[in-house]
Amino acid sequence: MVGRRGLSALNLTFLGTASAQPSLTRNHSALALRLNSDVWLFDCGEATQHQIQKSKVKMGKIEKIFITHTHGDHIFGLLPLLASMLNGAGGTADGVEDPRTHMVQDSDNRPIEIYGPLGTRAYIRNGLKYTHTLLGAPYVVHELRFPSDPPDGDYTSLTLHASESPNGRNIPQTNGVWPDIYHDTIISVSAAPILHSVPCVGYVVSEAPVPGKMDPAKYIPELKRTKTSMSVMSRLQQGESVELADGTVLHGPPRRPGRKLVILGDTYDPSPIAELASSADLLVHEATNAHLPALDPNTKSEDTFESVEARTKSRGHSTPQMAGAFAAWIGARHLVLNHFSARYPGNDDVNPMTKTIMEAIARLAGEHYSGKITCARDFMSCDVEHV
Amino acid sequence: MVGRRGLSALNLTFLGTASAQPSLTRNHSALALRLNSDVWLFDCGEATQHQIQKSKVKMGKIEKIFITHTHGDHIFGLLPLLASMLNGAGGTADGVEDPRTHMVQDSDNRPIEIYGPLGTRAYIRNGLKYTHTLLGAPYVVHELRFPSDPPDGDYTSLTLHASESPNGRNIPQTNGVWPDIYHDTIISVSAAPILHSVPCVGYVVSEAPVPGKMDPAKYIPELKRTKTSMSVMSRLQQGESVELADGTVLHGPPRRPGRKLVILGDTYDPSPIAELASSADLLVHEATNAHLPALDPNTKSEDTFESVEARTKSRGHSTPQMAGAFAAWIGARHLVLNHFSARYPGNDDVNPMTKTIMEAIARLAGEHYSGKITCARDFMSCDVEHV
Repeated sequence: MVGRRGLSALNLTFLGTASAQPSLTRNHSALALRLNSDVWLFDCGEATQHQIQKSKVKMGKIEKIFITHTHGDHIFGLLPLLASMLNGAGGTADGVEDPRTHMVQDSDNRPIEIYGPLGTRAYIRNGLKYTHTLLGAPYVVHELRFPSDPPDGDYTSLTLHASESPNGRNIPQTNGVWPDIYHDTIISVSAAPILHSVPCVGYVVSEAPVPGKMDPAKYIPELKRTKTSMSVMSRLQQGESVELADGTVLHGPPRRPGRKLVILGDTYDPSPIAELASSADLLVHEATNAHLPALDPNTKSEDTFESVEARTKSRGHSTPQMAGAFAAWIGARHLVLNHFSARYPGNDDVNPMTKTIMEAIARLAGEHYSGKITCARDFMSCDVEHV
Repeated sequence: MVGRRGLSALNLTFLGTASAQPSLTRNHSALALRLNSDVWLFDCGEATQHQIQKSKVKMGKIEKIFITHTHGDHIFGLLPLLASMLNGAGGTADGVEDPRTHMVQDSDNRPIEIYGPLGTRAYIRNGLKYTHTLLGAPYVVHELRFPSDPPDGDYTSLTLHASESPNGRNIPQTNGVWPDIYHDTIISVSAAPILHSVPCVGYVVSEAPVPGKMDPAKYIPELKRTKTSMSVMSRLQQGESVELADGTVLHGPPRRPGRKLVILGDTYDPSPIAELASSADLLVHEATNAHLPALDPNTKSEDTFESVEARTKSRGHSTPQMAGAFAAWIGARHLVLNHFSARYPGNDDVNPMTKTIMEAIARLAGEHYSGKITCARDFMSCDVEHV
């Protein structure tokens, strides 16, 4: 739970920005969202814990993990991360009891929550079993079930793991999406399918409406005139209406929509999430392959923008132009391109050649989109802001 | 297959030397053995492919992978490594056929061979299935079954994976060990149980006998005297006997034993492998915890050598003294200590403080052993030599 006092920080740190294979400058997919001091992780490719060690993200603060799809480059880091986070290494010699064998499932021991498509739970349960891994704290897996998925069951013949909470939900779609899979008083998460080579989802993180901008000069004279305590200012700030001693009613400024962050997994067509994602303050969209004939020496002589797009789509992915077009469609205010092929190094902060390539990729996205565009690199951090 | 012409290089590269959790200077367990140009891997903790990228080991040359036990810190890097080695990333969009769906199982497509205890096959098969991973070349898993294991079956309800060869063997023990689980004309591998918190094995890699040292002065006068072709020298070098024209018989120098390398997994008592491991030229032995009262600020005031050893053993591990005692018992010529707690950084090549600690650890092992002792660090490389 993020807390009741509202969000100050809503900060994204890219822990990995590579598609498929890691390079020396980009790791597999993972993204940390910091909400005040809590951390939510989106995807968890191999060596995400190594990236966390090198970043400012605190592993012990991770409360929830959202998986977009179960391809290895998005999930192979999950079991080792759980083992490190939750005291899951090692075991005891014969005759020495391991205290982790009997997990305390009580309200003081709130499980790490993991969300993902069908197979997420089975992957974790099987992986923990065959590696003899016991965790020092529980976890729970909530699965987003597609209409073609079995609506119930765990998709594995293995029974519940000793460290697994039995409260994992199988969440069916409502009108083609998964609304409010998590919510508290200040934040909610919804999900929707996006098209890829395997079942894949995007996540929409929405902040509850926040207090409107308040002009004190509009209220203070009235409060003074009626000798009303200045303490009502905080009620007005929250958007409430206050009746004064003389019957005058003051109306606080109407609450404004909170921030909206959209994080997509791999996709060649995210249209099913368009409505939920509408007016995002920040959209993270993959851009695996680009056609850069003058810059990329690997360009084939017969390649065209059309042929590269067709090949990219056939593998379930997007070009920068496709990402830009989607950002324009939903009216996103800031587009962060992510999930680049290993052929595009991620050291564009120090290498002029790489910088030229990433700028060219951003320009391709800008052909269809006029908002702010950023190309992600590992350890890049950015705030989600009302633009 | 290593080849028929004998081994020149027999080189070990330590890709990870940490127990349990990685640090900035030590990764999880993995070790590459280079035999001429082939590579065999022993254990494969998370981010082993990242370590390979930073080393001189060639991923594409890996032919066999030996797992000592299925604890996560020894196996979590295996699936992502297979995916990277064997073109296992990604997939295709709806309506586009994935050529990896139908694996060609023929003799030209020799599978990557993986050896490990019960659960290795199930771990891989389940992990590939739930991550939708198809490989571009086949793999096979041979399991070393303990007497208490089921002798048959795959230990999972899942059927064979599309990329998995059906020729995986379940290898029973013979007299308490697994002799010759692999052999060709110049190298063989045997395995034996070692005691840990979960079923765990050690591997013994033995080179076939090699030609003895030859003194040409002993043969050349005889060959000249009898006008025998000098080409028989190569037969003599191989240890053969040659009859000359006058009936004299020359005997080549007797073949000497080849090199022997012993790689142990985690253990608090490796005695079941002692006989197989006898007279090893190089022994890799874990030394997870040490009592270093003057050097390690985390030392508890009540700790003694005895209490640290008892705690270490209760978790299935060894101290340097235990490693030294075993090296002395089997008559090993070179002991490499490995698998250190995260509290011992691995940058002792550049940091004098760390160097002092690693030297102290080596001295503890030397209390019971007078041979050569080396403390492993990541990317350290050493040849297996007849000492």
